[in-house]
Amino acid sequence: MRLKGQTWEFASKPRIVASATVVGPEEGQGPLAADYDYIYDNLEINEKTWEKAERKLLEQASQLAVVKAGLTKEQIQFYIGGDLMNQIISSTFAARTLGAPYLGVFGACSTSMESLALAALLVDTGAAELVLAGTTSHNCTAEKQFRYPTEYGSQKPPTAQYTVTGSGCGIVGKSGGGPAVARATIGRVMDLGVKDPFNMGAAMAPAAADTIEAHFRDTGLTPGHYDLIVTGDLASVGLSIAKELLQKAEVRMAETEFNDCGLMVYDIQNQTYVRAGGSGCGCSAVVTYGHLIKKLINKELKKVLVVATGALLSPLSYQQGESIPCIAHAVALEMED
Amino acid sequence: MRLKGQTWEFASKPRIVASATVVGPEEGQGPLAADYDYIYDNLEINEKTWEKAERKLLEQASQLAVVKAGLTKEQIQFYIGGDLMNQIISSTFAARTLGAPYLGVFGACSTSMESLALAALLVDTGAAELVLAGTTSHNCTAEKQFRYPTEYGSQKPPTAQYTVTGSGCGIVGKSGGGPAVARATIGRVMDLGVKDPFNMGAAMAPAAADTIEAHFRDTGLTPGHYDLIVTGDLASVGLSIAKELLQKAEVRMAETEFNDCGLMVYDIQNQTYVRAGGSGCGCSAVVTYGHLIKKLINKELKKVLVVATGALLSPLSYQQGESIPCIAHAVALEMED
Repeated sequence: MRLKGQTWEFASKPRIVASATVVGPEEGQGPLAADYDYIYDNLEINEKTWEKAERKLLEQASQLAVVKAGLTKEQIQFYIGGDLMNQIISSTFAARTLGAPYLGVFGACSTSMESLALAALLVDTGAAELVLAGTTSHNCTAEKQFRYPTEYGSQKPPTAQYTVTGSGCGIVGKSGGGPAVARATIGRVMDLGVKDPFNMGAAMAPAAADTIEAHFRDTGLTPGHYDLIVTGDLASVGLSIAKELLQKAEVRMAETEFNDCGLMVYDIQNQTYVRAGGSGCGCSAVVTYGHLIKKLINKELKKVLVVATGALLSPLSYQQGESIPCIAHAVALEMED
Repeated sequence: MRLKGQTWEFASKPRIVASATVVGPEEGQGPLAADYDYIYDNLEINEKTWEKAERKLLEQASQLAVVKAGLTKEQIQFYIGGDLMNQIISSTFAARTLGAPYLGVFGACSTSMESLALAALLVDTGAAELVLAGTTSHNCTAEKQFRYPTEYGSQKPPTAQYTVTGSGCGIVGKSGGGPAVARATIGRVMDLGVKDPFNMGAAMAPAAADTIEAHFRDTGLTPGHYDLIVTGDLASVGLSIAKELLQKAEVRMAETEFNDCGLMVYDIQNQTYVRAGGSGCGCSAVVTYGHLIKKLINKELKKVLVVATGALLSPLSYQQGESIPCIAHAVALEMED
């Protein structure tokens, strides 16, 4: 463990021992369908409430990750997770099912990488040997809680994003065939005054840019070190803004491929109901733990930086006229040569 | 850093460099009044909304802790915190003010010790040199969000608890005159089926007992190692249940003084409106960072185990008929001879 600025360098290179993803039907129609472990054909996930559906995705993804790692759940020493629900109830109920000591975390959609960064920290420093990190979201729980119940049928502007129905989990251990968690940059809260919850990409872009800048300043690396840098879920509006901000800051993003989980998870041209793209705690989680880790294991990618972004508003803070504070946490996943 | 079961032993003994507490008028009428840094004479904390009041308590406590440590806020490398508000907005807005890289955490009222355990982990392992841990709660935000707005004037059963208006923060560093954070035990989610949000002490007692048992099993210590063991906020109902559970588990609690922050923070006999006692993210925080740390520095106490408990329900999970999952995290604070 070595601290540089706001970045942790994990000297022992903790590994992703196994990962698993479970998604809903709309994600199953997206371009990454082949990378998920299980795709439900119904948005209800065979449950009676949206909240139980969201929880089940996480319970199942965590169980699958444990099985894929050849472990039993009793071997998981800590579970680190969170979600968008008030009081992160989905993760808590999943932690009850799993039974492991539990560290609840919250960073909105950045929770995926906040939990992975902490899991890697625990393993790297000897505070644990096996840690499960995982997050979940469901389109209908998020709409109901943050905007309107989907049944109400309200229309949305083109800048709005679509919460992913899905969960992704990864088990971090000392060794294994998966990619190493090489380093992580913990973000600061950025708030440039955006107040529109239907334009979270614009609100989150400065946080993504700030964390990416910090990552390269702290590590001395340049973007070309990575084959791919993906933001968590800026979607189309936010990604353009982040590109502009990074250009102004003279971060040479042209050296590498720069994409966004919110754009990768859906077929934006045909799944037009997702508007600007995907979002939610499950968005960067299913793209990372499904798609990216497969590409890394197959050596189609060697070094990836995942910069998960989170809009840290609540319906109440929005109603009280507050702007949207945002954050981004970055985790570097690398396969050895 | 050494992991034993679910307990971290902090080999380098990170220190509480400074701590600060800011409370409301009712806590200022309690028996620990002399231990707080600032007592507001109005429940509004001179703000226009309860939410802004809750945030201000944390902003002020964190600022005071930084000043008392003789630091500037730019020297704080990470802020770890959370609160009871949906999407932990109080901590997020305080993190925006502080400007440090931010790890949002949530464990309901156990957040105080979850954040302190993680802060000590970071310092012990070299992942940071100075970390601020802190939580906040306000009676009126919690009542409004979890039960009824106080203005509605609903009555409460004697088992109900009273959310503390206050914030406590501690800065953890490598050295300093304050107590060492010797070890921490991370709890599991316990749920014995209690569904009554007006009896959270009963719901949380098994989690407290489970973590205390784990702590002594993992460390090989006995309760007599500590001068005092305090639970977070079981209050009168929960503390009796925890005592019974620990007796059944043959943990020799009679060796030491065993109390509860929810009972210590108010004058239960005279402040009868608090019913069974205090609760909230601020409860164990103001008792620990105000009262206990002073007693440790004065050597009136030498070794204290703080077992903060959290009821991880949401209004929605309760309305949907779910029981209350609970957790407890324990942190040992010790002065050297």
